[in-house]
Amino acid sequence: MAEKRLKGLGVSAGVRIGKAFVYSPVRLADIESKKTDHSGLELQRLQQAKAKCAEQLQALIDRAQSTLGEDKAMILKGQLSFLSDPVFYPPMEDLIVQEQWSAETAVHKVVSQVAGLFESMANEYMRERAADVRDVGNRLFAQLSDYQGTRLSDIQEQVILVADDLTPSDTVQLDKSLVLGFVTRIGGKTSHTAILANSLGIAAVLGIGDDIEAIRHGDELIIDGSVGDCIVSPSSATAATYREQKEREESEWADLKAYADREAVTKDGFRVELAANIGTVEESMSLLEQGAEAVGLYRTEFLFMGQSQLPDEETQYKAYSAVAEAMRGRPVVIRTLDIGGDKELPYLELPKEMNPFLGYRAIRIGLDRKELLLTQLKAIARAGVHGTVKIMFPMISGLEEWREARAMYEQACEQLRNEGKPFADSVELGIMIEIPSAALMADSFAKEVDFFSIGTNDLVQYTVAVDRMNEKVSHLYDYFHPAVIRLLNNVIDASIRHGKWTGMCGTMAGDPLAAPLLVGLGLHEWSMSASSLSKVKKMIVHLKRSECVALTQRIFELETAAEVRRALEDFHKQIEAGA
Amino acid sequence: MAEKRLKGLGVSAGVRIGKAFVYSPVRLADIESKKTDHSGLELQRLQQAKAKCAEQLQALIDRAQSTLGEDKAMILKGQLSFLSDPVFYPPMEDLIVQEQWSAETAVHKVVSQVAGLFESMANEYMRERAADVRDVGNRLFAQLSDYQGTRLSDIQEQVILVADDLTPSDTVQLDKSLVLGFVTRIGGKTSHTAILANSLGIAAVLGIGDDIEAIRHGDELIIDGSVGDCIVSPSSATAATYREQKEREESEWADLKAYADREAVTKDGFRVELAANIGTVEESMSLLEQGAEAVGLYRTEFLFMGQSQLPDEETQYKAYSAVAEAMRGRPVVIRTLDIGGDKELPYLELPKEMNPFLGYRAIRIGLDRKELLLTQLKAIARAGVHGTVKIMFPMISGLEEWREARAMYEQACEQLRNEGKPFADSVELGIMIEIPSAALMADSFAKEVDFFSIGTNDLVQYTVAVDRMNEKVSHLYDYFHPAVIRLLNNVIDASIRHGKWTGMCGTMAGDPLAAPLLVGLGLHEWSMSASSLSKVKKMIVHLKRSECVALTQRIFELETAAEVRRALEDFHKQIEAGA
Repeated sequence: MAEKRLKGLGVSAGVRIGKAFVYSPVRLADIESKKTDHSGLELQRLQQAKAKCAEQLQALIDRAQSTLGEDKAMILKGQLSFLSDPVFYPPMEDLIVQEQWSAETAVHKVVSQVAGLFESMANEYMRERAADVRDVGNRLFAQLSDYQGTRLSDIQEQVILVADDLTPSDTVQLDKSLVLGFVTRIGGKTSHTAILANSLGIAAVLGIGDDIEAIRHGDELIIDGSVGDCIVSPSSATAATYREQKEREESEWADLKAYADREAVTKDGFRVELAANIGTVEESMSLLEQGAEAVGLYRTEFLFMGQSQLPDEETQYKAYSAVAEAMRGRPVVIRTLDIGGDKELPYLELPKEMNPFLGYRAIRIGLDRKELLLTQLKAIARAGVHGTVKIMFPMISGLEEWREARAMYEQACEQLRNEGKPFADSVELGIMIEIPSAALMADSFAKEVDFFSIGTNDLVQYTVAVDRMNEKVSHLYDYFHPAVIRLLNNVIDASIRHGKWTGMCGTMAGDPLAAPLLVGLGLHEWSMSASSLSKVKKMIVHLKRSECVALTQRIFELETAAEVRRALEDFHKQIEAGA
Repeated sequence: MAEKRLKGLGVSAGVRIGKAFVYSPVRLADIESKKTDHSGLELQRLQQAKAKCAEQLQALIDRAQSTLGEDKAMILKGQLSFLSDPVFYPPMEDLIVQEQWSAETAVHKVVSQVAGLFESMANEYMRERAADVRDVGNRLFAQLSDYQGTRLSDIQEQVILVADDLTPSDTVQLDKSLVLGFVTRIGGKTSHTAILANSLGIAAVLGIGDDIEAIRHGDELIIDGSVGDCIVSPSSATAATYREQKEREESEWADLKAYADREAVTKDGFRVELAANIGTVEESMSLLEQGAEAVGLYRTEFLFMGQSQLPDEETQYKAYSAVAEAMRGRPVVIRTLDIGGDKELPYLELPKEMNPFLGYRAIRIGLDRKELLLTQLKAIARAGVHGTVKIMFPMISGLEEWREARAMYEQACEQLRNEGKPFADSVELGIMIEIPSAALMADSFAKEVDFFSIGTNDLVQYTVAVDRMNEKVSHLYDYFHPAVIRLLNNVIDASIRHGKWTGMCGTMAGDPLAAPLLVGLGLHEWSMSASSLSKVKKMIVHLKRSECVALTQRIFELETAAEVRRALEDFHKQIEAGA
């Protein structure tokens, strides 16, 4: 068979070679509308299907809780509650009883309508909820039709999984140890599949489109998840090339693993702290082995998402304590709730906004709905007893907000004291630097805060006025923009002058190309995804601070991001030549 | 009758006292659905109503073109084209023929559906288009029912007009010289009524809500459009108070008018250029008499809006030339198309964006759709023959964009040369400073551009990451934020060092409170709405530059916007005490 090359989005890196497992479950979209003369019977069929779905979901939830953790299980719990939602199930019964539609047609009509509603929303997070609705619909339909399609549980050997899309409940059923890679027709960088692939180290090429039809069950496949290539029935020459690349990648990984236990210190003795960004308790479990010296950013949003109400102080206290304990005394920087923007919590009933990134989010919500922030601050202060926690306030734009947030922390301590609950009384308080105004006012802030953590993702976004998720303008988004570098310098410099420290928890910290610049600027704490730690550490130990400072001085004179990038690339070549 | 106080949004300043004219036209929303046995007859009625509406709209368009100008007429032209739109009229006929609805019901159903669609859109501009749809629907309905409701043409004396809402075609029918003020149930700061009130100097209190029912036709009314107060049947004491306030306002206006002919120069000889922001050719006609020395910002968007296709080079050339001629050699700074963000052009088919303010807009569109920008640059260069035009590129974030835009101007000149068309060959080229990265890189830009114009509205928005239209966070939007002041200083300072000039065309330039700071910073050109010119000029002639510089130095040390505001207020009190 001739070799075919397909192109998609590379969302999770790595070359993988294996057999295609084409997953084609029953999909509700395929059915034709039918009326019935036996409404009573259809109603009964629907009720039975609902009951079976509920059972099945409960079983999946139990399984997810033991293998994947609470946050993944929440997705399934959301589906289970959908099944009884007044906008979802009762309208199906109505369609059968009042309009004599068949059970299948009733399910189809309601699912299309509800999913369509979600899909029409401007907010990406809400749009992706449509997948959950369709997923519940497919479950109901599979129960009604008594035909389940290809089952993921049929997978018995290592395969590359090929699918239209993978729904959350698909992936829960999956034995991930048997999946080398994902290839899908639809899906982008923020889809469930992308997030799952990244967190499990599965290579993934998503959004191939209709060309995916070229792949047949059992075909030989090669995927390269860093660039989005998918090769069907590769020639032996192609296969050999990719096998080499795969071996190179694997040996690089083995090489990098050797750095996990080393200190992150330059040749001339400049020591930095390498930390990890996490979103869940599980992610903290193996961090010390992976070479992290701290948690530089604990995103607490996940604890709040996929719930039907705010998690109480006790629930939060347990999660924060678990992370603090897992890190055995090493620092854990906990960011207070950074919801809003592209992240929604239905139960908070946040307003619909024209520009959510410039809207009601993060500390702006916390200072408005004070009980919410207060509860979280109390939980963090209590967790401080089990390790070294630090508190970081997101989206601070001016001194007043910071002072108000600090006062709320003091109020939280006061309440804990009155309640007689043990808590840590010397928690460091810091702010995210992710808004240009905060970066510009760093000298004033540095007098009052304990630390800064630069969120480059948002900082770049506001500094160059670009939503990095918007493909029409994302080419303008670049953390090497000279204006961004001036802000970084202003912040780090201010913290050093006042005897404070600066961290960075944006993507830039995990980019080895940026490392000489960040060493040159004097960045103290570098926080990144755990998978980047060894790569960055390897870079740092090959640098000399003095050379990085000289490079950084030259970079200050440059006028475009392209020039900065070139200067860093040249510097890297020199390092490699010298190493 | 007892005095009643109602509260709304003050969207156009001024105290007005007069009789209420309650406008209650036929509204489609009131009708009940009805089926018909005479589809043929209903179809004929609908067709006749459509024909009459088209006639009526054409008459209004002709009237608008001669009295209000092309841009206002465009709104009505939009309605006229709606009347034949395939999503609008044919579905009405279908509802009559296929489902036996009455003509009125058919109109009602289609209008609700189409208007509902617009209203569900996240974009505020599109949402407001729903008003146009309902307006055409009301016209059709009025024709069908042969009852026209209260007519605005019944107004024979000066009144305060009270209405649920005023549609564009309502306001076209209105003799504005008889309207002292507007009071409406619904409507916000960006509604048609607000824009109209501002441009005509009519006081307006909008969005009163259901309390508006308290007003009866013929009631005595007092409105205060600066704070949003509306008093029904005022007591004689209240009336006396407001009469005094009204006289004070009028004498202030008379006082300010005296400044129109004076130069804007401080007591110690620092001369600034006072300029006006305009959006249409008509606005330029009386600018010189109002005391403007230049057009600091000609927003060309209005020429592109409400059209069905891009205006060609000739149309643009005529408009730009007319403004250049009206200004008799004084500078006219023309901003290239700043569309996108909250301003849409349906025929450009711009993408739907999650954060339009951080998206595909202004120069980002111009550098992507090059013919669009090229055509505009050619038109501007040609208009340069008729006066002194300057070109300003909006939303520049980095050096490369500016260089690319400049190259396009050179290409435009090259094309004009080849076509043998006369054009000005030494047009000054400048950039808007409205993105933090551009403000931070001002020293690099200053070497290459002829001038800067600071757009404080957007600059503040990005610097503090706040959409100022979003009421949940607009309290954080403040041009006195110390971070903003640092950026202003960086920009003005860079331009002075390189022998270039800086202007400002945001709201800040028209705020007398900001004047001492802007004099202190050395701002050269101040551009504002024509109605602010005299107020600001009066302030400037009472200042001493040396004192302003000292004040500005003190302000650099302040840490919050509140502190800056207080310092400026104290300074103003001193000036007033001394004056």
